[in-house]
Amino acid sequence: MGDTILDKEQRQQTALLQPSRRSAVDAFIAMDVMAAANRREADGGRVIHMEVGQPGAPAPKRALDAAREALVHGRFGYTEACGIPGLRSAIANHYRLTYGQDVPVSRVVATTGSSAGFNLAFLAAFDPGDRIALTAPGYPAYRNILKALGLEPVEIEVGPETRWALTAEHIERAHREKPLKGVLVASPANPTGTMMTPETLQALIAACEDLGLWFVSDEIYHGLVYAGRQETALRHTQNAIVINSFSKYYCMTGWRIGWMVVPEVLVRPIERLAQNLYISPPYLSQVAATAAFEAREELEAVKAGYAANRNLLLKRLPAIGFDELLPVDGAFYVYASVRRFSNDSHDFATRMLQEAGIAATPGADFDHGRGHRYIRFSFAGRNDEMGEAMDRMENWLK
Amino acid sequence: MGDTILDKEQRQQTALLQPSRRSAVDAFIAMDVMAAANRREADGGRVIHMEVGQPGAPAPKRALDAAREALVHGRFGYTEACGIPGLRSAIANHYRLTYGQDVPVSRVVATTGSSAGFNLAFLAAFDPGDRIALTAPGYPAYRNILKALGLEPVEIEVGPETRWALTAEHIERAHREKPLKGVLVASPANPTGTMMTPETLQALIAACEDLGLWFVSDEIYHGLVYAGRQETALRHTQNAIVINSFSKYYCMTGWRIGWMVVPEVLVRPIERLAQNLYISPPYLSQVAATAAFEAREELEAVKAGYAANRNLLLKRLPAIGFDELLPVDGAFYVYASVRRFSNDSHDFATRMLQEAGIAATPGADFDHGRGHRYIRFSFAGRNDEMGEAMDRMENWLK
Repeated sequence: MGDTILDKEQRQQTALLQPSRRSAVDAFIAMDVMAAANRREADGGRVIHMEVGQPGAPAPKRALDAAREALVHGRFGYTEACGIPGLRSAIANHYRLTYGQDVPVSRVVATTGSSAGFNLAFLAAFDPGDRIALTAPGYPAYRNILKALGLEPVEIEVGPETRWALTAEHIERAHREKPLKGVLVASPANPTGTMMTPETLQALIAACEDLGLWFVSDEIYHGLVYAGRQETALRHTQNAIVINSFSKYYCMTGWRIGWMVVPEVLVRPIERLAQNLYISPPYLSQVAATAAFEAREELEAVKAGYAANRNLLLKRLPAIGFDELLPVDGAFYVYASVRRFSNDSHDFATRMLQEAGIAATPGADFDHGRGHRYIRFSFAGRNDEMGEAMDRMENWLK
Repeated sequence: MGDTILDKEQRQQTALLQPSRRSAVDAFIAMDVMAAANRREADGGRVIHMEVGQPGAPAPKRALDAAREALVHGRFGYTEACGIPGLRSAIANHYRLTYGQDVPVSRVVATTGSSAGFNLAFLAAFDPGDRIALTAPGYPAYRNILKALGLEPVEIEVGPETRWALTAEHIERAHREKPLKGVLVASPANPTGTMMTPETLQALIAACEDLGLWFVSDEIYHGLVYAGRQETALRHTQNAIVINSFSKYYCMTGWRIGWMVVPEVLVRPIERLAQNLYISPPYLSQVAATAAFEAREELEAVKAGYAANRNLLLKRLPAIGFDELLPVDGAFYVYASVRRFSNDSHDFATRMLQEAGIAATPGADFDHGRGHRYIRFSFAGRNDEMGEAMDRMENWLK
């Protein structure tokens, strides 16, 4: 009997030192694929990276120069939690130049990448149990961060009938079924590369305002648009939480620097959360990012490279047998059906890495229901690499 | 009647677009004081900064050189979520050299500062409603991050009777009253600068193991010890979650780079959370931090400067009238009673900034109950500044 009690106590104690329930979020599969690809390279293999959405180009020269200059003193302290004044002004100025929008500097928050933007937005706007609508397919970290924070992602399957966009009708229907608290969209989107039309975006924002829902607008792929017109949510409402980053257009992924524009009522809550959760974004990244706004010429040349890659893939992938591609309005992704080759894109991606040395991300990362039929190719790499990838793939699939 | 319904609907909608309840965490007052001090400087005033716990010295030369070298290629991508292999190995090696502890690289996680370490630890180990014991006074972000994540900080007042340490008895008593799920301590501690004796630390860890509680050990001030012997929690248990950073001893606050050593069972949960919430720590900071381990000579010289500052303050503050100082075993803080001058250290700090140009952090940031009687001086600045601060303070308090 004594033994039984002891056993029970021991079991309890062991059971206590277990991971939390909320840590049981999905892995970010693209990162796992990258890790596998890196191991392959460390073992001497050569891999063409089409798995992670990051530019092959370095940060623009002006950004690197600014960083080099700052290294002379090397005294990089904490900054104010919402970022150095120069960066925040430069961001506000960007809205004037790019969108003709006046954004007060006080509503601009520099963040440690858009990752911090999402975390801060979700913590500041939502309480545990709140329901937030998202598209499936969509960026997996949305769903995973929401879950880790006790929020409920409400994934709404979108498809060709709405050009892969979340619409006002989707939201009204979902809200009637069970009340939502917010809506999150990206346009251009990841993994699809599709962009919402200005009319669809405006109607969706109007529906959110009518229903009293927070609207979170992920504009991280702005600047990388090949077809259609990009619009910031701030054109339609000052209540939107806009999230952006220097990772994509500005080629600064590993610098971990991004920004938000937030409604007045969230400024101080977000500042308090940022003070406690981040202290401040990295100093050097803030300095470099400020300078990156002056590098438009260099960045437009990089974008022209993506446009060439896009043309290449849109020509060659169908010829290889990828007979269903989504429209690539923006970003640097082709989301393609693998139905001609496999019913399981995870298995397909694993074999493609092992046998053809091409890393790409299986659709399950983005869409639990239908993702097994799709794969995402990032075309942010060099043009010669993209060409080589197409050649390798063609040989492999023969 | 129609109007009334409309009014009600409108009220509801406005009420919906409000900050979340959980965003109502305290501001990090030290950051607010820094912002006020920076505004004063922008207006042409001169301020001696003793408010924020950050070294006045730049990052070590080897770290700056490594960063400069990396800027030549400038291609800073995402790294694996737990950090570049070179940094993780260097950290594991640090445990062998400094503590004689063998730590497998797989259990080392590079983080975006210790801030990310706390967020990841709390998310990975605790579920909403879990109770975590902390000291009061203590680092305010512990409490505020816990609250934002739906956890309950259980603040236990410590004082001279236990040399300001949390003890096994404290924990056993608190756990009997209402079960805890974890315990977090820092040694050396912030704001007190006190260090736990090896015996107290060992007994506390043993109590946590007996009760099945997670033990989170904040070792961020290791390396900065002037009296007593520093010990890592890993000497006593492999179940501890150890958090550390390059911000203090290594003089790299604004680089936002730190690390954790985590129990085997938390490795994958933390990796998944890090992938989604951070993607990866800043690349350049990882490169520079790896090199910082080779800069011991330079860093020991910086530490000798702190030791000189410490001697200066321990001599002059009592002479000025600060008649109750806590023992300064480590870190770079003096936590002093202001009872000779004021009953309200917030008001005292505000006037000291305005009238004497010295920024320091009122104790309320660290201890809601008793902090109004204390103030924290950081002595991480230059020696001549510390001397000038003492002169100014002496004149001001006359």
